[in-house]
Parts: sequence; C-alpha cells; structure tokens
Amino acid sequence: MSSSIQPQLPIGIFDSGMGGLTVLRALTNKLPNESFIYLGDTARLPYGTKSQDSIVRYATQVTKALLRYQVKCIVVACNTATAAALPYLQHTFPHLLITGVIEPSAEKALQATQSNQIAVLATETTIAQASYQTTLRTLNPQVNVVTQACSLFVSLAEEGWHHNDVALATAKQYVTPLFDATPTIDSVILGCTHFPVLIPLLSSVLPDHVHIVDSASAMADTLQQLLGEQQLLLEHTPDTPPRTTFLVTDSPTRFANIGQLFYGAEISPTAIELIDLQ
Amino acid sequence: MSSSIQPQLPIGIFDSGMGGLTVLRALTNKLPNESFIYLGDTARLPYGTKSQDSIVRYATQVTKALLRYQVKCIVVACNTATAAALPYLQHTFPHLLITGVIEPSAEKALQATQSNQIAVLATETTIAQASYQTTLRTLNPQVNVVTQACSLFVSLAEEGWHHNDVALATAKQYVTPLFDATPTIDSVILGCTHFPVLIPLLSSVLPDHVHIVDSASAMADTLQQLLGEQQLLLEHTPDTPPRTTFLVTDSPTRFANIGQLFYGAEISPTAIELIDLQ
Repeated sequence: MSSSIQPQLPIGIFDSGMGGLTVLRALTNKLPNESFIYLGDTARLPYGTKSQDSIVRYATQVTKALLRYQVKCIVVACNTATAAALPYLQHTFPHLLITGVIEPSAEKALQATQSNQIAVLATETTIAQASYQTTLRTLNPQVNVVTQACSLFVSLAEEGWHHNDVALATAKQYVTPLFDATPTIDSVILGCTHFPVLIPLLSSVLPDHVHIVDSASAMADTLQQLLGEQQLLLEHTPDTPPRTTFLVTDSPTRFANIGQLFYGAEISPTAIELIDLQ
Repeated sequence: MSSSIQPQLPIGIFDSGMGGLTVLRALTNKLPNESFIYLGDTARLPYGTKSQDSIVRYATQVTKALLRYQVKCIVVACNTATAAALPYLQHTFPHLLITGVIEPSAEKALQATQSNQIAVLATETTIAQASYQTTLRTLNPQVNVVTQACSLFVSLAEEGWHHNDVALATAKQYVTPLFDATPTIDSVILGCTHFPVLIPLLSSVLPDHVHIVDSASAMADTLQQLLGEQQLLLEHTPDTPPRTTFLVTDSPTRFANIGQLFYGAEISPTAIELIDLQ
C-alpha cells in the first residue's frame, strides 16, 4: 500500500453498465461507513460479447478515470472485465489495490461443494476466457467444472423479466442439459453481475440441494477482508456522511431507470454524472 | 451526384454489428452485379441502447471509414442509426447518396394497410426516437401507429433461438397486448435488422391477416430505384466478378459465427478485416 492512500478516500467500482450495481449494493450493505464512486461504461456495454483486446483498453481507460477521482482501491464489478483485464490492470497499476469478482466466487463455491462438481453460468466471453475454470482448478485440482453461456439472462435482467414465462423457459433451456449430463452438480456460480436479480427464478429451476454463489455477496466478504489487511477499512462512521457517486459514459436517464432494478433502490438522475473516457 | 462517383465502385453498407447482414443479403439478391463493403461496428454494438449523441459520433466515424474505401453510396442498414443519425449524415456529407432503412419500410407498410393501423416492433432507442411514428404520419396523417420495444428479440436472434419455447413466449409477451388493445392492426413493421430471422416465428404468433414488412427487402427495392435514378446502377455483369468485403471493429471470429445466422450463408474469416475507427 502506498503511504499516500488514505482510508477516508472512496472505493472505486466499475462495470460495463448496470449489472455491477448488484455488487455495489452488497458492498454498501456490508461496508456502511464507506463512500463509493461507481463508474458504468454504458457507452460501450455490454463487455460480454467484446474481444479481450477491446476490454483491456476499456478497463484501462476506466481505471485511469477513477484514479482522477481519487479512490483508495478499485473493484472490478464485472466478470467479463475481471476475466479479460484484471491481471493486466494489476500489473499496470502495481501500487493500487485492484480486485475482481472471480476469485471470491470460486472460493465460496469450493467451500460449498461436497461433490466437487461445480457449474458456472456466465456470459459468452467470460466462459470463453475460461477464468472460472482455471481459477477453480488452481485452487482445487480435483474439481470438475461445467459451464454454460447464458447470454439471454442479461437481456432478461435488463428488461425486468425476472420471473415471467420467458424467464422460466430460458432458465430451463440453459440449465436442464447441464443437470441431465451431470446430476451431481451441487454448487452453481452466477458468473455475471446481472444474474443476482434472477436468483429467485433460478432457485425454482435448480434442484433443491444446489448452492447458488453470486459475485456480489462473495465480493463484499472479500473486500472487507482485503481492506482490513491493508488498514484501509473505515471501522467507524466518518465525520461527513458516506456518499455514493455515479459516473456513466452514456445516457444517465437509462442508467437511472434500469439501474434501479439492480441497485434495488432509486437512483436520482441528479446523482449521476456523464463523463467522456476517450 | 458528384461527377467523380463511378457506378463500378462498391456499395457501402453499415450496421452496429451483424443484423445489417439481413439487409446485405437482400441487396445482393436484388442487385447481383454490385460489389459491397459491409462495416459492422461490433466493438460498440448494440447501438439500440445507446444515446443519440453516441450514435451520431459512431455513424460519422463509420461513414468516414467507408469513404476511405471508395464507395459510391452508403446504406445505413441499422434502424437505430437511421433514426438517430441519418439526417445528420446527409447534412454532413451532402454530395454522397446516403439512405436509411426507415422510409422504405414506412412506405411499404402504408401500401399494405387497409385499416390505417400499423404496429412497429423495434429496439428501445428506435422507438424512443419516434422516427417511424413521425415518418408514417408525415406520409399519411390518417395513420395510427402503435409501438413496442422488443429488446429481447435481438438476443434471441443472436443466440440462434428463432423458434424454440423461449422465442415463442417472448413473441407472445410483446405482441399479444398490442393486438388486445388494437385488434385492427393489419401491418407490422419489423423496425430492426435483426428481426427478419424471426419472421417464421412472428407469422405463427400474429393474426393471419397481418402483413409483415421487414427493413431488408424494403431497402433492396428502394436502393435499386435510387441507384437507377442517379445512373449508379450496374445493369450488366462487370468484367471483374462482384465481391463482398467485410470490415469489423471487434473479433472477426464472433462476427463470422453469428453473422451467418443473419447472412444466411457462410462468411469466411479470411474475408473479414479488423479495422480501428478511433
């Protein structure tokens, strides 16, 4: 940790759009004394279907923008960006605590599984990057990982269709073949920050014995620990009340409207600032 | 028409990604002597959820890139880009024939309707721009236009889910309320270039008397006429065989894989060139 970094500074957090707001919600619940600056790169969402080169470029621009706002650490609240760009970011900004959503979820899933059969549901690019597969097998070489790209879950989550006929048919279409092939799966990682809003739906489709791990709550536990280790955690309520600022790269109106589905609370358009990264 | 523009030059055509390939397919069928340069701005797809400012900026960059490849005209094969940027492009490049997909579809729908009740299915941004509504009412002030944003149709089309349970449930969810409210609708415009692959599905859900108008075939008829009027049409087979070149701003592999769903034919990865617009 650089000596210039003060615990009073806000936590930076970014995502390609609104999905990362599920992570922000979990962080604000877990760390109520902290202030946050959330950046949604909405002009270029979704990252989930973009190439690694593009995502590395976008994530670097976003990190530099957050640093201009003086943050004490950065949470990559996007599975695709974590898979594609986290090692690059950590190498490029070696004095900054930068953490991503994959390893915390992998650790939780390994704690939960009895059968060592874990399924990962994520976007096309996250699955193709194979970061969950690699991380899980590095932590436990005995584990078997099956994967399913679930592109439509992103659209369902954004459309607010979290439990209608379409959502149910989609969940069955993606999930049934996995369990037909590997009935002993007992732990499912939701490897996309959009997916926590679909947990009630997925609970109704997945077998009862399956444990669902989501990026948001896994990240909150890990960040609390990391900040504590680096003496960057605000243990007590600060003098000025904690606040959350939102930065976006495209329409604040759409961010506010759709964002509240993921944030679980209203986002005032006046709390959102439009910025240009290019 | 500028005197420097030769009929032998290729036709430029662009879209945010792969959807415009339905238009390219219709154009190559209708105009078999012509060569084409198709640009898919895949690094920034989809346009359908971006703001007008962003889309105008992207469309201007794309137009300049196509001009560097020497095209004789430009087809905006994207409803969102047509709605958001066509007037700006026509004003900025006054000596170039630039045409978009909205007016041709509007004219076809007006020819087809008996009841003067027309429905438009499109992306969120296209509906919000209200260009179909404005264009239809300008051409015929008597017409009543009802609209439905169908964001999930884009994902279904890209996932290749063109006629499964999910596609059927989605189509019913979007379409049924429209016809419950306005049973006399007899003409439906598919205002997104992704949607033609869903025509068999929509035919099974829409009442029998409904006429479906898609951007691709409407555009092909109009472009043939416009090129003829400006002496830019190749009436006979040229000496060098016509060819189609693909330019993309992100992963050629994904473009080739998903693109063939819309193009209706294989796209060789070697025919695709990765370019940088920024």
